Amino acid sequence: MKIAVLPGDGIGTEIVEQAVRVLKALDLKLEMETALVGGAAYDAHGHPLPEATLQLAKEADAVLFGAVGDWKYDTLDRPLRPEQAILGLRKNLGLFANFRPAICYEQLVGASSLKPELVAGLDILIIRELTGDIYFGQPRGRRVSPDGHFPGAEEAFDTMRYSRPEIERIARVAFEAARKRSKRVTSVDKANVLETFQLWKDVVTEIGKEYPDVELDHMYVDNAAMQLVKAPKKFDVVVTGNMFGDILSDAAAMLTGSIGMLPSASLNSSNQGLYEPSHGSAPDIAGKGVANPLATILSAAMMLRFSLNQVAAADRIESAVQKVLAQGLRTPDIYSEGTTKVGTREMGDAVLKALG
Amino acid sequence: MKIAVLPGDGIGTEIVEQAVRVLKALDLKLEMETALVGGAAYDAHGHPLPEATLQLAKEADAVLFGAVGDWKYDTLDRPLRPEQAILGLRKNLGLFANFRPAICYEQLVGASSLKPELVAGLDILIIRELTGDIYFGQPRGRRVSPDGHFPGAEEAFDTMRYSRPEIERIARVAFEAARKRSKRVTSVDKANVLETFQLWKDVVTEIGKEYPDVELDHMYVDNAAMQLVKAPKKFDVVVTGNMFGDILSDAAAMLTGSIGMLPSASLNSSNQGLYEPSHGSAPDIAGKGVANPLATILSAAMMLRFSLNQVAAADRIESAVQKVLAQGLRTPDIYSEGTTKVGTREMGDAVLKALG
Ligand SMILES: CC(C)[C@H](C(=O)O)[C@@H](O)C(=O)O
Ligand SMILES: CC(C)[C@H](C(=O)O)[C@@H](O)C(=O)O
Repeated sequence: MKIAVLPGDGIGTEIVEQAVRVLKALDLKLEMETALVGGAAYDAHGHPLPEATLQLAKEADAVLFGAVGDWKYDTLDRPLRPEQAILGLRKNLGLFANFRPAICYEQLVGASSLKPELVAGLDILIIRELTGDIYFGQPRGRRVSPDGHFPGAEEAFDTMRYSRPEIERIARVAFEAARKRSKRVTSVDKANVLETFQLWKDVVTEIGKEYPDVELDHMYVDNAAMQLVKAPKKFDVVVTGNMFGDILSDAAAMLTGSIGMLPSASLNSSNQGLYEPSHGSAPDIAGKGVANPLATILSAAMMLRFSLNQVAAADRIESAVQKVLAQGLRTPDIYSEGTTKVGTREMGDAVLKALG
Repeated sequence: MKIAVLPGDGIGTEIVEQAVRVLKALDLKLEMETALVGGAAYDAHGHPLPEATLQLAKEADAVLFGAVGDWKYDTLDRPLRPEQAILGLRKNLGLFANFRPAICYEQLVGASSLKPELVAGLDILIIRELTGDIYFGQPRGRRVSPDGHFPGAEEAFDTMRYSRPEIERIARVAFEAARKRSKRVTSVDKANVLETFQLWKDVVTEIGKEYPDVELDHMYVDNAAMQLVKAPKKFDVVVTGNMFGDILSDAAAMLTGSIGMLPSASLNSSNQGLYEPSHGSAPDIAGKGVANPLATILSAAMMLRFSLNQVAAADRIESAVQKVLAQGLRTPDIYSEGTTKVGTREMGDAVLKALG
C-alpha cells in the first residue's frame, strides 16, 4: 500500500507530520513517499504541481494532503498559484466524489457560533461532485462581449456543465453512503434558474428510483444555505455540484465550530483517494506549533477506511482521537476554559499514546 | 408617483395589503394599481408575467411586490413557473442592483440561531448584481456533450458571464452605499477558480481607486460563507455577483433569525425599483392571517426612500415599525415568551397607529 504524502504550505507540514507518525505507529505495511506541492513546489520547481509530484500521486493508492496557499503567492498568474495543485490533482486523478463530513463533537459544542441545542449531535455528510461543473467546464476566458447588456465591451466567461453520467455516478455515491447512515439524501440544486441543475435534479430523481429504501428530497441552494444556518440537524447526506458544494461544505464545517477537527476524502472510481483536512493552510499560525493536527489525523483514518481497506486501523485512530478529546486536550483553535491547551506535537503524542 | 402593486401568491396578498394600508395613510399623492403576478397570474392568464403586468411595472416609478410560488406549480415547464415572473421583471426593467440588508433587531436577537453576542447589532448590506451572471448568460441548454468527461452523453450547460461595465456599475453602487455607512466594502468572488470572477476582482479593484475613502477587501465565496457563520459583524457592505449573492444574502438574512423583518430593493439606473420582502410566499401559512407583514412594510419604506424620494415618509414608517416592536407586538415567526402574539392585520393596525 503506497501513500503519497504531500504536506504543502503553511501549517501543512506540521499537521501532516503528526498524521504520518500516527500511521507509522499502526502495524501496517505502508510505503510512504513525500513530495512538494503548492507554494512550496512553486518555490523549488516553478510549478505548484510538478510532474514528479503528480506521477507519485497517480502511482499511489492514496494521497495524504496537508494544505496549500499563502498570501505571498497571490500575485502570481493563476496557473502558478498554489491552489492549482489541488485542482490539478482532482482532475488528473479523476477524484469526482468529495466527502465532507460536518460533525459537531460532543465536547466541542460550545465552540460553535450556533446555539448548543442546534448543533449538539450534528452529523452531516456533504458529498460534493469534484471534477465537473463550472470549475472545469470549457469554454472559459476573456473576450469582447458578443451580445448581452454591453456588446463590444470586455467580458469574462465560464461554462457550467454536467453530463448525465457525471450526475449518475455522484448520485449513486450519495445513495450508497445514505444506505449506511440514516437513509436520507438531500440533493441541492438551482433547477429553478439553471439548465445544468434541472438536468441534475432530473437525473438524481431517476437514480433515486434504484434506491427505494432511501428518502430523497430536493432543495434550492439558497434555501439549503438558510436551512443549514437555521436547523442543520435536519440534514443527513447532502449531494450537490462542485460550486454549490464548495460553499455549502465550508459553511457546514464552520458551523460545527471546530473546522480544525474535520477531515475530507476525494475519491475516484477505483477508490484511489486524496485525503486532506477541511481547513486551509493558515499561514498566520504556520511554524508556531499550535495548529490542530486532528483533522489531518482523521483524514488518515478516512484514507485507511476508504482507499486502503483497513477498517480496524481506521477505527483505532478515530477512537484515539475521541480519547484525547475526552482527556480534555485542546489545541488553541478548540480550547475553552477548563480544558488543557496543547500544541501540535503534544496533540500528536497524545493520539499516539491513546492508540496503544 | 405611480406604484405597481403585485401581491403574487401565498402570503403575498395578505402582507402587501398591510403595506398598502400604510402607504395610503401617509399624506402623499400615490397612484397605486394592482395586477396579478406569479402563480396567480398563471391561473388567470396562463403566464406568470402577463404582458399587462409587465407594462404596468414598466410605467410605474416603483413596484411593490409580495412573493411568488407554490408547490402546485412545481410540475409546470420552467418558463411558466411563478419565479420566472421575478426573473422577467428584473431583466425587463434592468434592475441590476439588489440591496439586501441583513439587520438583527435589538428586540429579536434571541430569535437568531447564532449566539446573541454574535448577532446583537448586526447590520450588513449585501449588494447583489441582479441582471447578469449565470442567471441570464447565453448560451444555455441541453445538448450532446461535445467533449469533457463523457463525450456523446446528454449534458446541460449554462454560461457565467460578466462584462466590465456590468461590474463597474454594481461596484459603484456598492462604494456609494459604503460612503453613507462605515466606508468598508467586501467584494466576494471566486477569482481562484473562475475567469468571470478574476475580471470581477480586477474591475472592483480599479473602481475602488475612485473611492480612496472606502476600504476594500476581497474574499472568496467559500470563505465568505464561513465568515458569515462565524463572525457576521465583521461585514459591512458586501458586493457580489448574482449567483453568489443569491446564496449569501439568504444565509445572512436567516442568521438574523428574523427574515420576516427584512426588506429588499432592486434598482435600475434610473432609480426605478422593485421592492419585496426577503422571505418567500410561505404557502404553508397562506390565508391564515399569521404572516409577518413587517418586511413588506419596510420594503415600502425603502421604496419611498430610493425610488420616490420621500425620505421623511420612509423615516416615519421605519420609526413606526420600531415602535410596534418596542410595544412587544410579534407575529408568530418572531414571537418569544413575554411578548404579545398578533396576526397579520393586527400588526398592520399597530403600524398604522404608530405612524401617528
Ligand atoms: C482552493 C480552492 C480551489 C478549493 C475549491 O474551491 O475547490 C477549496 O476551496 C476547496 O474547497 O477545496
Ligand atoms: C426565485 C428565484 C429565481 C430567486 C433567485 O434565485 O434570484 C430568489 O431566490 C431570490 O433570491 O430572489
